[in-house]
Amino acid sequence: MFQRPKGTRDFGPDEMAKRQWALDAMRRIAISRGFREIQMPTFEDLELFTKKSGPGIVDELYAFKDKGNRDIALRPEMTAQVMRFFVSDMASLPKPLKLFYFGPCFRYENPQSGRYREFYQFGAEIIGSNTPETDAEAVALASALIESIGLKNYIVRVGNISILRDMLKESKLSEEKISEGLHYLDKNDEDRFSQFAKENGLSEGRALSMKSVRNTKGGIEALDKLNLCGGKDYLKEFMECISLLGIGKCQLDLGIVRGLDYYTGMVFEIDAPSLGAEKQVAGGGSYDLVPLFGGEQVFTTGFAIGFDRVLLAREKESPLSISSGIDAYVIPMSDSSRRTALEIVGALRKAGLSVDFDMMRRSLSKNLKYAAAIEAKNAIILGDKELANGAAMLRNMGTGDQKEVKIDSLAKTISGNR
Amino acid sequence: MFQRPKGTRDFGPDEMAKRQWALDAMRRIAISRGFREIQMPTFEDLELFTKKSGPGIVDELYAFKDKGNRDIALRPEMTAQVMRFFVSDMASLPKPLKLFYFGPCFRYENPQSGRYREFYQFGAEIIGSNTPETDAEAVALASALIESIGLKNYIVRVGNISILRDMLKESKLSEEKISEGLHYLDKNDEDRFSQFAKENGLSEGRALSMKSVRNTKGGIEALDKLNLCGGKDYLKEFMECISLLGIGKCQLDLGIVRGLDYYTGMVFEIDAPSLGAEKQVAGGGSYDLVPLFGGEQVFTTGFAIGFDRVLLAREKESPLSISSGIDAYVIPMSDSSRRTALEIVGALRKAGLSVDFDMMRRSLSKNLKYAAAIEAKNAIILGDKELANGAAMLRNMGTGDQKEVKIDSLAKTISGNR
Repeated sequence: MFQRPKGTRDFGPDEMAKRQWALDAMRRIAISRGFREIQMPTFEDLELFTKKSGPGIVDELYAFKDKGNRDIALRPEMTAQVMRFFVSDMASLPKPLKLFYFGPCFRYENPQSGRYREFYQFGAEIIGSNTPETDAEAVALASALIESIGLKNYIVRVGNISILRDMLKESKLSEEKISEGLHYLDKNDEDRFSQFAKENGLSEGRALSMKSVRNTKGGIEALDKLNLCGGKDYLKEFMECISLLGIGKCQLDLGIVRGLDYYTGMVFEIDAPSLGAEKQVAGGGSYDLVPLFGGEQVFTTGFAIGFDRVLLAREKESPLSISSGIDAYVIPMSDSSRRTALEIVGALRKAGLSVDFDMMRRSLSKNLKYAAAIEAKNAIILGDKELANGAAMLRNMGTGDQKEVKIDSLAKTISGNR
Repeated sequence: MFQRPKGTRDFGPDEMAKRQWALDAMRRIAISRGFREIQMPTFEDLELFTKKSGPGIVDELYAFKDKGNRDIALRPEMTAQVMRFFVSDMASLPKPLKLFYFGPCFRYENPQSGRYREFYQFGAEIIGSNTPETDAEAVALASALIESIGLKNYIVRVGNISILRDMLKESKLSEEKISEGLHYLDKNDEDRFSQFAKENGLSEGRALSMKSVRNTKGGIEALDKLNLCGGKDYLKEFMECISLLGIGKCQLDLGIVRGLDYYTGMVFEIDAPSLGAEKQVAGGGSYDLVPLFGGEQVFTTGFAIGFDRVLLAREKESPLSISSGIDAYVIPMSDSSRRTALEIVGALRKAGLSVDFDMMRRSLSKNLKYAAAIEAKNAIILGDKELANGAAMLRNMGTGDQKEVKIDSLAKTISGNR
């Protein structure tokens, strides 16, 4: 027997119905806020991803040579692709450009709970604007997407990477040193950071105030305790926009550094606490990547939601059940009624009803069992006696009630009962 | 500047809106006929595909070794995956099992019109039934899927591979020889077939009658000219089912051999003549693959539609245009109205309207130009004078008409005008 590859999944009918329901809900929300969908290839030149994330990422990639000896990789994420696509084909579209996308991404790592080698991301970007309301609109979308699938227990944490970065810049550190310092703060390694501060000539007061920024969490009032300039005003305005847009569940967390150098200002993460250790379901912020891919500087704010994880969190909170029930299942009771069955199926489908029929020529009891299994709402039983009257037996599969209905009236009767 | 890989595509907002519209239409049709969606991984063990299609297929695959030294391939099609999934997890589900699936497939070949290295297929299978009405239901779905996206100029051609195969079997040929003979008939190479018939002891009469079967095309009456048994009766019953289900555009073409050995009976192809040389947009038939993947024999009828090609044909016939227009675009006219703008956006979204707003703090004229570009149906202009009255200016972007509307009534007024 063949196995599916390690870390990948098959989705059966029940699971796929839930996934498609969730994706439809998210897609609808994004479109209703002026975001438009795009799609990029499943693989790209390897260099696209190393350019963005450094050569170290190759170890985590499905990378290979194609038959033309080109270095190719299955995409580990989609932002680099959006930037490439933007530079080559979308740079002249009206700004702000609000985009979203969904698809499989690939990472060669050991599979564990909620982490797969093939996983699905839902992402969005706002390209060409850099006001607080732009950042708020991005976070508002992430939050609305999560709410659209009914997840209630989640928290949005928002920081501003430029606050800590500016404090290091003021101390005249090189870009490399700044990254190193931020790394220690990201890991919340206070000892290493203190040592780093000493070695690089940061005053004790500056090091202390950076640690206190790093540990700032809570509502907008948490900012009052800090003695800061630019980044703080920006965050205040951002938090006000968030609140005016009607988004709850948003807290400050200035300790969010998000590892990657290309974030420039607001950064955010969304957690679903029910997932435990792997609780982050979304992350993003404002960043500057277009020049890396050959374009001019363009402000961008974006994020990605881990589709598998957010759905897992939703299901932990309250299990989903998507009924696939068709309107009617048609059962011919004899060879002679088989023709009539097909005619009825054709007519009911033309009338817009969802209809299936017995194609295995089984007994009534087997057919009723099957109709129940596929959750058909009605069964239409074609017995010779009823057919002689130009009628059929309409059975409500929920209640078991049966009544004779003229064939001409089936569509109307079934539609009326929906 | 980075290029996307050769033979792949990016889909921008306009194109993606059309693709998503088409996919939604097809998905809705499949579900309304009792088919349920499944999804399999993007890559599989290489052996899954060579098992089905022979080692020769490797040349056309994106095949590579993963970091665990496993031979992996991007899927060139999805039927083998469905069979694997069926054997491992779905064998005990109620029969018939009606499934559909959509996704990217990959083939390493030289890109040309309508053929890409990453292309999209929409497929369906009915597993566990082998009556003429089963085959008819599969063809009916293929036809309905194509009609669901508005393609009118297409033709379904149906054959029965078992007719020609049985004629060769009766002549006591080996499976290998049968495949060879069918291959010549598939290519319509009459000379090679005559030579093959001579070399393998087929009578001249038998060879002639096989050629005449191969060239049989047209309506159900075309069968009357043929002196045959089983396969003919089956096709007659099939064609009757097709007609009872209300499917037009279906013709016989007994020359359809479809190259592959695993087809067992009915085979069909759908052409969109507008596409010229690459006119085939769908193909399938009844086949027997489950045992190859380790399961017991199960009758299956399935097909795949070339999503890219069928959409291309649709667009050649009459261009699609999907409006992405949101209900309203909100424009604050001053710094002081920016807060109100966000409140209105939040409230209108909560009321179920699709709403966007100026996040770049631009002038009225620039904002109106942008609102027109994104095809917003209305602009809500927040001038200080109107705001002082608790109102805003509502501009119909289609007609240019403006009227003052109380802020509390905006949602109702806009919904009423939809």
